[in-house]
Amino acid sequence: MAAPALAATFDDEPYYSMGPSTYKVPLRMYAANRAKLVSALKEKSPSLANSIVFLRSGASATRDATDHEPLFRQESYFHYLFGVREPDFAGAVEVSTGRAVLFAPNLPEDYATVMGKIRTRDEWRELYGVDDVMWDEEDVVEEWLAGALKRGDSSLPEKAAGGTGSDSDEAEEKKGGTGEDAPLAKILLLRGINTDSGKTIEQPKFRNECPLSSHFENDSLHDIIAECRVVKSPLELSLLRHATELTSLAHAYTIARTKPGMMEYQSESLFRHYCYYSAGMRHLGYTAICGCGPNGAVLHYGHAGAPNDRQIQEGDMCLFDLGAEYCCYGSDVTCSFPASGTFTDDQRAIYTGVLNAQRAVYSMLKPGVSWVDCHKAAEAAILRSLVEIGIVVSGDKTIEELVEMRLGAVFMPHGLGHFIGIDTHDVGGYLPGHPPRIVRPGLKSLRTSRVLWEGMTITVEPGCYFIDHLLNGALSSTEDSPEGLAQYLDNSILSRFRSFGGVRLEDVVAVTSNGCVNYTLCPRTIDEVEHVKRGGKWPPKKDEALELRRERLCHHAVGRFSGGGSLE
Amino acid sequence: MAAPALAATFDDEPYYSMGPSTYKVPLRMYAANRAKLVSALKEKSPSLANSIVFLRSGASATRDATDHEPLFRQESYFHYLFGVREPDFAGAVEVSTGRAVLFAPNLPEDYATVMGKIRTRDEWRELYGVDDVMWDEEDVVEEWLAGALKRGDSSLPEKAAGGTGSDSDEAEEKKGGTGEDAPLAKILLLRGINTDSGKTIEQPKFRNECPLSSHFENDSLHDIIAECRVVKSPLELSLLRHATELTSLAHAYTIARTKPGMMEYQSESLFRHYCYYSAGMRHLGYTAICGCGPNGAVLHYGHAGAPNDRQIQEGDMCLFDLGAEYCCYGSDVTCSFPASGTFTDDQRAIYTGVLNAQRAVYSMLKPGVSWVDCHKAAEAAILRSLVEIGIVVSGDKTIEELVEMRLGAVFMPHGLGHFIGIDTHDVGGYLPGHPPRIVRPGLKSLRTSRVLWEGMTITVEPGCYFIDHLLNGALSSTEDSPEGLAQYLDNSILSRFRSFGGVRLEDVVAVTSNGCVNYTLCPRTIDEVEHVKRGGKWPPKKDEALELRRERLCHHAVGRFSGGGSLE
Ligand SMILES: NCC(=O)O
Ligand SMILES: NCC(=O)O
Ligand SMILES: [Mn+2]
Ligand SMILES: [Mn+2]
Ligand SMILES: [Mn+2]
Ligand SMILES: [Mn+2]
Repeated sequence: MAAPALAATFDDEPYYSMGPSTYKVPLRMYAANRAKLVSALKEKSPSLANSIVFLRSGASATRDATDHEPLFRQESYFHYLFGVREPDFAGAVEVSTGRAVLFAPNLPEDYATVMGKIRTRDEWRELYGVDDVMWDEEDVVEEWLAGALKRGDSSLPEKAAGGTGSDSDEAEEKKGGTGEDAPLAKILLLRGINTDSGKTIEQPKFRNECPLSSHFENDSLHDIIAECRVVKSPLELSLLRHATELTSLAHAYTIARTKPGMMEYQSESLFRHYCYYSAGMRHLGYTAICGCGPNGAVLHYGHAGAPNDRQIQEGDMCLFDLGAEYCCYGSDVTCSFPASGTFTDDQRAIYTGVLNAQRAVYSMLKPGVSWVDCHKAAEAAILRSLVEIGIVVSGDKTIEELVEMRLGAVFMPHGLGHFIGIDTHDVGGYLPGHPPRIVRPGLKSLRTSRVLWEGMTITVEPGCYFIDHLLNGALSSTEDSPEGLAQYLDNSILSRFRSFGGVRLEDVVAVTSNGCVNYTLCPRTIDEVEHVKRGGKWPPKKDEALELRRERLCHHAVGRFSGGGSLE
Repeated sequence: MAAPALAATFDDEPYYSMGPSTYKVPLRMYAANRAKLVSALKEKSPSLANSIVFLRSGASATRDATDHEPLFRQESYFHYLFGVREPDFAGAVEVSTGRAVLFAPNLPEDYATVMGKIRTRDEWRELYGVDDVMWDEEDVVEEWLAGALKRGDSSLPEKAAGGTGSDSDEAEEKKGGTGEDAPLAKILLLRGINTDSGKTIEQPKFRNECPLSSHFENDSLHDIIAECRVVKSPLELSLLRHATELTSLAHAYTIARTKPGMMEYQSESLFRHYCYYSAGMRHLGYTAICGCGPNGAVLHYGHAGAPNDRQIQEGDMCLFDLGAEYCCYGSDVTCSFPASGTFTDDQRAIYTGVLNAQRAVYSMLKPGVSWVDCHKAAEAAILRSLVEIGIVVSGDKTIEELVEMRLGAVFMPHGLGHFIGIDTHDVGGYLPGHPPRIVRPGLKSLRTSRVLWEGMTITVEPGCYFIDHLLNGALSSTEDSPEGLAQYLDNSILSRFRSFGGVRLEDVVAVTSNGCVNYTLCPRTIDEVEHVKRGGKWPPKKDEALELRRERLCHHAVGRFSGGGSLE
């Protein structure tokens, strides 16, 4: 199984890091992201070959009307192209030349007192490795864009400028042009719908009535740049592997220290401290989920109204879904374990079903496979273990038939996983040209139904939960669980699990040329989990579960990432 | 010196806490806040006696257009009145009866799968101790408000309803009334300007063209409720004392473990972990500032563009400005110490000046004293130590004359401190009827110029910094530092301090009937700081600096707040 190419960083090239012995992210990564976008635009249509990409960064903000400024984290598309850490920037890429330019806020001298030394344009340019930096003031952006449009036109190969291409997209473009001779050079603005939130990314604003508005085009950039983000580059893969390995070690650290009597939030605090203290990871990718007992059945437990504030009980299963970010690339990993340190028979049975679901997925996951089929394979493994326990009574049906009846969605109401990258739920799940969302229980929650490609990174997160309103629905056959599911459930056994909570196991994997590689290095088998709970060493010397594809579990490669100070 | 009355929580009353052995906040605190507002409205004008206060809570939000939801923290005015932890609520208070009502989002059943069990109206009512809870759907809010207006009218004492009061405010109101008989009952909406951010709090939105809009009044509520928040109740004082004591212990924990060679962010991580792990404090009140060496001179260091990522050097002064929140009430404490553990002569000299500034303030701080005079007393103490070092040459001027020339603002460009409560920079600094902002160097940064009252909580945070552009300005006499300051500076000595950074010492104090009490229990004297750096025990058995008013430093009272698990 060939892993997708990873990439090394060299000490003598410009990079970002959080200091000595933290991970180095070369600025080359962003240059490669921009080059990929430029190629994709040119490939899409010759009429885009003289266009300019223009984006605005995330904006500085305060909480409500106060002066409280939440810690800024860059908007994800802007981070993808430019890697800028500060708010209130803009950026542009000339497609014809690949030149990248940043527009930085021109700060007043007082800023230095409060926020620190004000960088010169040259310092910004060097910091972010772009071709030029200008101050974003008055009409600078508009004037630069006007100049770039002119340069783009003159750099056009005659064929493209003359519009003799045979591509149908281009033919369409010509109709919208100003003259007969050349297509109107475009300023490509980011506008589109995020399919996880349903929210619209609004096109960037310009200061005044912009004289260039006839050149604005907000239809094509979004889908192309989203598609660029779907397949990760070697440097992105290395970074995501790093984020996931550190997240894995932090999970092991937290699991070992979580004991009955502690509060769930204390486990959250242990995890956060490990990530930040030992690896400079200041942000989590999402709100920490540390659910014990029944809280394990609440998929996004841990929010402000349910803030990980239960005291952990001896008999609880704990479900910890925690992932840290480094340089805006995140991880998303879930471990489940018994608070006591030793699995009961029921805990073991449910856990085994979920782990078998991961095994089933890893045995099939490779380029060309449909994610929907992976989801169903995971459901089948879980249903098989529920049959073994006696919760599910298959009767005259095969497991595959029960899957098609969507019985699996009663126990796993979410999708098997999602792309992961700069966003936890990374973009590109439902782009045009790919399979649409399937509107059936469970499947409708899939964040993508695509066929897998080499270089995609995706979470594999099967789960089995006991959620009252879903169980009640299935038992009484309401709309969401069509008449008939009840007969495949044995309520006398099911009732024993009513406050069990749930088990989820979530890994971050990359699709390779002929399979997949699991970046997650967590204790996964029952023996491994009990070993870590007993205070045993992690990672182990020998991998007892090669089918989990944890390629670097025993290479001790992770040691070299640990940060400026050790934590013990 | 009588401390303002603190209040106890009783185990058998409804309270909020983060679980066993964390601090209990009784729901009574919010009831008292509402009662105070009701009294203030009635006192302001009889025409408000039949009005209804209506507010919306903070709204749920995502980062940009993604589905990433930053951890929600309640809008501060809504928290003050209702203590609700979730977004998307509304709340109302009937002034005539004091009845409090919440409007909760009516969540779809699917919400239970993702976010947890959906509470009934009765459960919400009990959770937040209000009189009624309705679902915020369709016209429920509008209908309830219409009913409340009616009830308010009929409950009006005849005199008020008839408008025979002599109060001039009321006379004005009458002109705006609908008829000759009664003033129009009002729905008071929160709208005003936050004087720290300069931003406007916009009045709450209503679903449709609201039929009640003729009753809307957005002129009076803001200043009255802001004024209510300025003087803290006994229960608020207890909570702020708790937040500050825990913050103080976390500082001591962090100082003891911060060593040269570590990264600044590792210290931030230690602080956060202590607060959250041992006391359930999930939020900081503001972005952590852990500046070492020259970074100590950057007032709000630690933001995304300067993320506490310097490696701490042996010779550095460290300036850590860190404060944690509990139940939306925060603290704001700064400690400064030498990374090496032992003060050099220069470090000792600057530190002593700043500590003397605190001493000068505590010796005068009591009801009736102007905060501007406290600021100037702090500046004088700092200038005196700068004279001793030789940086300032007073020549023919007294220290008081140098203060009036604003020389102090070259070294302390910020205000002495600010009100603190639900917001770090708490509201009410420049309300009508109080002294306006003074537009002179340093003083213009004061967040209030008010006269002190018993029950106010305020930070005392003198600092002495070496900020290049301010020093250069003073040395070359630009606009901000009028001609003449240069002659009072000895650049040959000053240059030695160019990369010193700064020292700030920040305490949270409450104004008592005849003085003040310091809630901050940090190592402050040079002996105390060196003792903690050596690994010595904190808090101490004996208070060697009674002039710092740390009333509970040696009472060991703080021990009983430590959380579910100890940290060592
Ligand atoms: N870990 C967040 C999610 O999968 O939705
Ligand atoms: N501690 C934040 C400030 O005083 O501005
Ligand atoms: Mn997850
Ligand atoms: Mn996930
Ligand atoms: Mn502060
Ligand atoms: Mn402060």
